[in-house]
Amino acid sequence: MELKSRILDLKIDGEKAILSDEVARSLGVCHGNRVRVSGKTGSATTFIALTSEIVGDDEVGLVSDFSDKIGVVEGDLVELTPTGRPNSANYVRKKIYGEFLSREEMFELIKDIANRNLSNYELSALVTAVSIRDMSMDEVQWMTEAMVEYGDSLEFTEYPIVDKHSIGGVPGNKITLLIVPIVAAAGLYIPKTSSRAITGAAGTADIMEVLAPVKFTAEEIYQITKQVGAAIVWGGATHIAPADDEIIRAEYPLALDPVSILIASVLAKKIAVGADKVVIDIPVGDGTKIEDRKEGSKLARDFIEIGERLDMEIECAITYGGSPIGRAVGPALEAREALKALEGKETPKSLIEKSCSLSGMLFEMAGTSSKDEGTEKARELLKNGKPLEKFKEIIEAQGGNPDITSEDIEIGQHKETLTAPSEGYVTSVNNKSIVNIARALGSPSDKKAGLEICKKGGDEVCKGDPLIHMYAEEKWKLKEGMKEAKKHFPLRVEGIVLERIPEL
Amino acid sequence: MELKSRILDLKIDGEKAILSDEVARSLGVCHGNRVRVSGKTGSATTFIALTSEIVGDDEVGLVSDFSDKIGVVEGDLVELTPTGRPNSANYVRKKIYGEFLSREEMFELIKDIANRNLSNYELSALVTAVSIRDMSMDEVQWMTEAMVEYGDSLEFTEYPIVDKHSIGGVPGNKITLLIVPIVAAAGLYIPKTSSRAITGAAGTADIMEVLAPVKFTAEEIYQITKQVGAAIVWGGATHIAPADDEIIRAEYPLALDPVSILIASVLAKKIAVGADKVVIDIPVGDGTKIEDRKEGSKLARDFIEIGERLDMEIECAITYGGSPIGRAVGPALEAREALKALEGKETPKSLIEKSCSLSGMLFEMAGTSSKDEGTEKARELLKNGKPLEKFKEIIEAQGGNPDITSEDIEIGQHKETLTAPSEGYVTSVNNKSIVNIARALGSPSDKKAGLEICKKGGDEVCKGDPLIHMYAEEKWKLKEGMKEAKKHFPLRVEGIVLERIPEL
Repeated sequence: MELKSRILDLKIDGEKAILSDEVARSLGVCHGNRVRVSGKTGSATTFIALTSEIVGDDEVGLVSDFSDKIGVVEGDLVELTPTGRPNSANYVRKKIYGEFLSREEMFELIKDIANRNLSNYELSALVTAVSIRDMSMDEVQWMTEAMVEYGDSLEFTEYPIVDKHSIGGVPGNKITLLIVPIVAAAGLYIPKTSSRAITGAAGTADIMEVLAPVKFTAEEIYQITKQVGAAIVWGGATHIAPADDEIIRAEYPLALDPVSILIASVLAKKIAVGADKVVIDIPVGDGTKIEDRKEGSKLARDFIEIGERLDMEIECAITYGGSPIGRAVGPALEAREALKALEGKETPKSLIEKSCSLSGMLFEMAGTSSKDEGTEKARELLKNGKPLEKFKEIIEAQGGNPDITSEDIEIGQHKETLTAPSEGYVTSVNNKSIVNIARALGSPSDKKAGLEICKKGGDEVCKGDPLIHMYAEEKWKLKEGMKEAKKHFPLRVEGIVLERIPEL
Repeated sequence: MELKSRILDLKIDGEKAILSDEVARSLGVCHGNRVRVSGKTGSATTFIALTSEIVGDDEVGLVSDFSDKIGVVEGDLVELTPTGRPNSANYVRKKIYGEFLSREEMFELIKDIANRNLSNYELSALVTAVSIRDMSMDEVQWMTEAMVEYGDSLEFTEYPIVDKHSIGGVPGNKITLLIVPIVAAAGLYIPKTSSRAITGAAGTADIMEVLAPVKFTAEEIYQITKQVGAAIVWGGATHIAPADDEIIRAEYPLALDPVSILIASVLAKKIAVGADKVVIDIPVGDGTKIEDRKEGSKLARDFIEIGERLDMEIECAITYGGSPIGRAVGPALEAREALKALEGKETPKSLIEKSCSLSGMLFEMAGTSSKDEGTEKARELLKNGKPLEKFKEIIEAQGGNPDITSEDIEIGQHKETLTAPSEGYVTSVNNKSIVNIARALGSPSDKKAGLEICKKGGDEVCKGDPLIHMYAEEKWKLKEGMKEAKKHFPLRVEGIVLERIPEL
């Protein structure tokens, strides 16, 4: 059936084509059915929403991201054809029933996911089924390859290209802003794509965006890397392994994160940017994704095995993730802390230590330093200021202001401090409530919102000592942050005697 | 944040509140997040879609079914509050991880489903998890009770109230249109809610709608039943066990139909209409939901056990479902065939036989006839014409024309006949391709579209004999039906020698 396009500037998750009841009836389709929309330059399948008012009986409403995809503008005639379930829906069923997919089936499935041909229901069923049934190593490998195949890639002729990835879950983990300049200062290429926070307080892309734009195409990332040796960009803005971004969308509502999909997602992004030597940071501890070292080791071995199958050299660092890295949490605060570290100003040891260790592993893998000397090389580089220079080159190449210093970074004007309710020792810092407070303060969408942790595990405190400084862009959010902190107190302060037997 | 309502006459699956990017930013929410919308008379939680054009920065767009629910009209001020995941999302996670829900958890989960507080992702994950992990008998019982609790009920003082349900999958299964009048003609109450076809050719509600309206509230169904002893209505139009309808929406995209949810769904609808004696028809055979008798028996035992827990007497009939019941498939054609049977005109034996057997089971359970004499009683009733009278009373009570006869029913004007490609015997009729042909012809949305099967299993045919008459309301759909029939030939015609060894 031929209909006139009406472009609707809406972001809707599932249904991209909107029909009048009359048109739907005559096409024999109902709400949620699939329909193929063909324009002059392209066609794609999507799902139908119905309406009785917004579009007329000779029209089809097309949500703008969809009309863009098939190259249709307002008023264009398009052809609508009802279509059934794609084969890949059956592959989802196969995973539900505990069967394994062949290479061809996995590629078709990932292709359909990348092209948004699977409904939210189908995607969620896939993620749920994989969470329960898991995937074979073959399936993980094919999923990785397929994610790379159906997306853009960077094709460097240089060698090696290094990269790093941190499994999420630890607040304040701004190490990428140190590692990338350190590694690039030693002459290695590191085109780093990062994520924004989904459930966290600030992703690397959110932090970097305080200093420079982070949205680039694959081609632009390639050019920036060729120019200055490195980039720190937002992966979600590229078309690199787009199926991964679609799957994440389905993982988020139930906070599902099956390890097999995690491995495929991470490695697909690395392969697509051309990396062949990669360090994976696996933080373990309360409130991280990986609860204990045993689970961390298993994940590391799986990463290394899939890496071998894909000709990628992988080393994993199991790191302490039981409390935040450094003291700052929130985009601007973290950008400032990272910049301070590069400027050689006083910053928390945990941040410097972790950044240098992981940079050192990359040096040793790339042959830039001999075995066991990588960390030391990173420390020396940091001291001589070259990484700061390199970071400014990266900022400039991405269109930011290279003259920025840590003192220039603005922090939210509304401030309040959480103080110690009693004297004693800080026995733990709760990752989860730190994140919740930062989010209540407005982070990550309010860049200047966030918090600074004054005392960490082992520190002695007197009653009334500042524990956490909170910053917000809006006054009511400051209140929300304080409310959250009082509901779930983020630091545990206890007397030196932790328990007395028999109790009083 | 207070915003002005703008009502959008759209049917969107997930997101019911539409915000401008600016409003979303300032609320700190993004696409897919949950928000509570409070009007003067009610409030409810829904999901957010974003836009940059359709709604302004002082507005929230509300999809009409949602604004109706909270009693908001165009221009009303509403309060928007971001909210997190409900507890019930965690109960979905529990099912994913193979844990069992408590009674309280199941009730909260079903309440949120009935109130549409779960996203499509979450619902799909639940259905997938239950498909893999199954539910305990306790969980099935609680799910049933909860589905009844969060919806309308019919409260009869009469006893017994009988009911029947057919597990789907067999085309042409119009037996409800015979059973309900037969049973009611004997003085029993049978307030029957039925479904529309989702993947099938015609649901009972689609067929009944040819003769009378089928959309009623619980209170109206109660009144109709009090008046004439029976009703045949569309369950989806009522607010009876609405959680069931929501779950079905999530089962459809992947054609999942876990048995434990099936039992809860069926029994919840029965309890809610007040039924205490129920016959479950379990068709088994190729192309039905239940593939073999063993599986059918297991399902029957589960139905009976859950029935006992809920003080409902249940008997199950495992019936032959390997080929269509009767000869007609499609709403008008099936209504005509059912009416013919009630009028005492010649109709297929399979239809009469099945209807009388199941009616007889209800008579025996209700004590209306002695053991082993129920079927005979049903046959006698059918002969003396009382069920036809009763059916006309039902049609009239529901607002249809009681003077209608089978000859008055209009069938699609475009007709074509599928003929035998060779001589031989019909060895099988394929349920699935019969359904696909009927749907291609326009059934169930085109009421007059469908088909008549001229020859069934065992019949001898000569080359060119009519096998299937096809009817459509639109010419191009007739072509689609013929195309479908040629792609997957619905009857198997073979020589009497089925195989020759060694092959020629």
